[in-house]
Amino acid sequence: MAVYTDVTVEDLEPLLKDYNIGEPVSFKGIAEGVENSNFYLLTDKGAYILTLYERRVREADLPFFLGLMDHLAAKGIRCPVPVHTRSGARGIQLNGRPAAVLTFLDGLSVRRPSADHCAAAGAALAKLHEAGSDFPLWRMNALGLSAWRTLAESTKADSDNVQKNLGALIEVSLTRLEREWPATLPSGVIHADLFPDNVLFMHDAVSGLIDFYFACNDAYAYDLAVMLNAWCFEQDGTFNITKSAKLIAGYRRHRALNDVECAALPLLCAGAALRFLLTRLYDWLNPNPTALVRPKDPREFARRLRFHLAVKSPAEYGL
Amino acid sequence: MAVYTDVTVEDLEPLLKDYNIGEPVSFKGIAEGVENSNFYLLTDKGAYILTLYERRVREADLPFFLGLMDHLAAKGIRCPVPVHTRSGARGIQLNGRPAAVLTFLDGLSVRRPSADHCAAAGAALAKLHEAGSDFPLWRMNALGLSAWRTLAESTKADSDNVQKNLGALIEVSLTRLEREWPATLPSGVIHADLFPDNVLFMHDAVSGLIDFYFACNDAYAYDLAVMLNAWCFEQDGTFNITKSAKLIAGYRRHRALNDVECAALPLLCAGAALRFLLTRLYDWLNPNPTALVRPKDPREFARRLRFHLAVKSPAEYGL
Repeated sequence: MAVYTDVTVEDLEPLLKDYNIGEPVSFKGIAEGVENSNFYLLTDKGAYILTLYERRVREADLPFFLGLMDHLAAKGIRCPVPVHTRSGARGIQLNGRPAAVLTFLDGLSVRRPSADHCAAAGAALAKLHEAGSDFPLWRMNALGLSAWRTLAESTKADSDNVQKNLGALIEVSLTRLEREWPATLPSGVIHADLFPDNVLFMHDAVSGLIDFYFACNDAYAYDLAVMLNAWCFEQDGTFNITKSAKLIAGYRRHRALNDVECAALPLLCAGAALRFLLTRLYDWLNPNPTALVRPKDPREFARRLRFHLAVKSPAEYGL
Repeated sequence: MAVYTDVTVEDLEPLLKDYNIGEPVSFKGIAEGVENSNFYLLTDKGAYILTLYERRVREADLPFFLGLMDHLAAKGIRCPVPVHTRSGARGIQLNGRPAAVLTFLDGLSVRRPSADHCAAAGAALAKLHEAGSDFPLWRMNALGLSAWRTLAESTKADSDNVQKNLGALIEVSLTRLEREWPATLPSGVIHADLFPDNVLFMHDAVSGLIDFYFACNDAYAYDLAVMLNAWCFEQDGTFNITKSAKLIAGYRRHRALNDVECAALPLLCAGAALRFLLTRLYDWLNPNPTALVRPKDPREFARRLRFHLAVKSPAEYGL
């Protein structure tokens, strides 16, 4: 939840001249998007989101993110699409930040997804993978395996202050992941952050996917592993195999998983848990004093990581 | 800008059963309202604001605030109105907080008001005073003259660390205000916080007044003095008499100012500047660690206070 950069009505006026989106009716900062500043903009033509990209989103990556949303929407995926300016640009500059106006999607994100929500969201992920398979741009996963070692080193000194033996957990799992990480898995554009906040529902059907600012090229099954971490643990920390089985089954209705992907799933899940453990731990130890957001507790992903490391077979995910 | 208390879609469901406002289409925390948590709620029947009242708004005052909005709206003032529950209540309890669902108003608040904006806002204040004159409830101004002494005492030790001689400025002006404060002025329900953020415009006409959570019974001319402080100083700190003259003239088109009110204006303006100086100073020195909001700089109101103390005649406000 964040508004890092202020935008006034006066700032909005020249911006609106660049777009053919009508006259403003309402304009409010919204508490959404940890990485960016977001504003709800209602005009006499419709509802939009104005996003200002803050330091964590590299300007050089915007053609990938914004182009991907255009590409996916053209293939029938419901996601925000960047409104083009009168001169055809997808992005602009506003108050010293790269910015974009995106279409606003109706729908509500669930906090405690049901098994049916998991099935629907798993299906949506597979459709996203299919629709993105011919997207022509390429972006490295900046938070993939090679980044984890860097994050582990920079958090090493203080990790045990956050939780007893956390440093050892990170070191043991990272060493194992570096040794066993599968070299070749079916890959393409992945969302890489499809948590429940980023899936909108209307009447229990998926009405949209949002927040593509971690999207990149990586293994499809890793994206599924991110979702198993994000959707299938209960508030008490336990893993819910019913939800996991439904999520995977939903996925497989639209994209097949091959034997190598299935076998790799426990390792990929451990990797995804480690990724969120490390980035949350880093933010926890290095809070941004200007951020209007409290860092998320890293420890829940330590618990999830321990669960995945103990998994003996993909069957434990309901596969 | 604030969301202090989290509200999930799951929390929303039982709430919506209490109201006849349709099915939710979108729900987002919004960065508005320093004192409360606010959410934009779009349903298939319309747009609403869900407000959770945080510690600074006393639950016992809600019948005054919510009743006032109902009263004003019935008299033609455009302001949010509390949607009544199926059982007729104006407020509910949600996540341990008193809460209300209010109608959402279109319009945009200006950051740098023009002289015409000032005229329109001044007229809106007078209409508010007229419409509230027969409101039957009464609420003391909890941030009136008697509260300033308490705030001055509690900030005394550290005020000079914020600005050189700030303690002396506060003491001198407070002593003078206590001595000279007018005993009887035409009084009634005032907004008490009609800053530009709390006035919505559409095509340069006032489309709504918001944020009635400082409303109370006090001198009408004091409310005007709050506005002169909030609307008529430029970003470089200078006073703009053109804007002030237009704001007062706009006010007088709908409510007359008598001679006593006119004569008291410099003192009332100094009092209003001191009120915002003191509350901002207090928040500056006692930041709420759980607030997702940076305290506002108190020093701009020190400068405004010095301006008013040097005023020799109401004519200096364009009266």
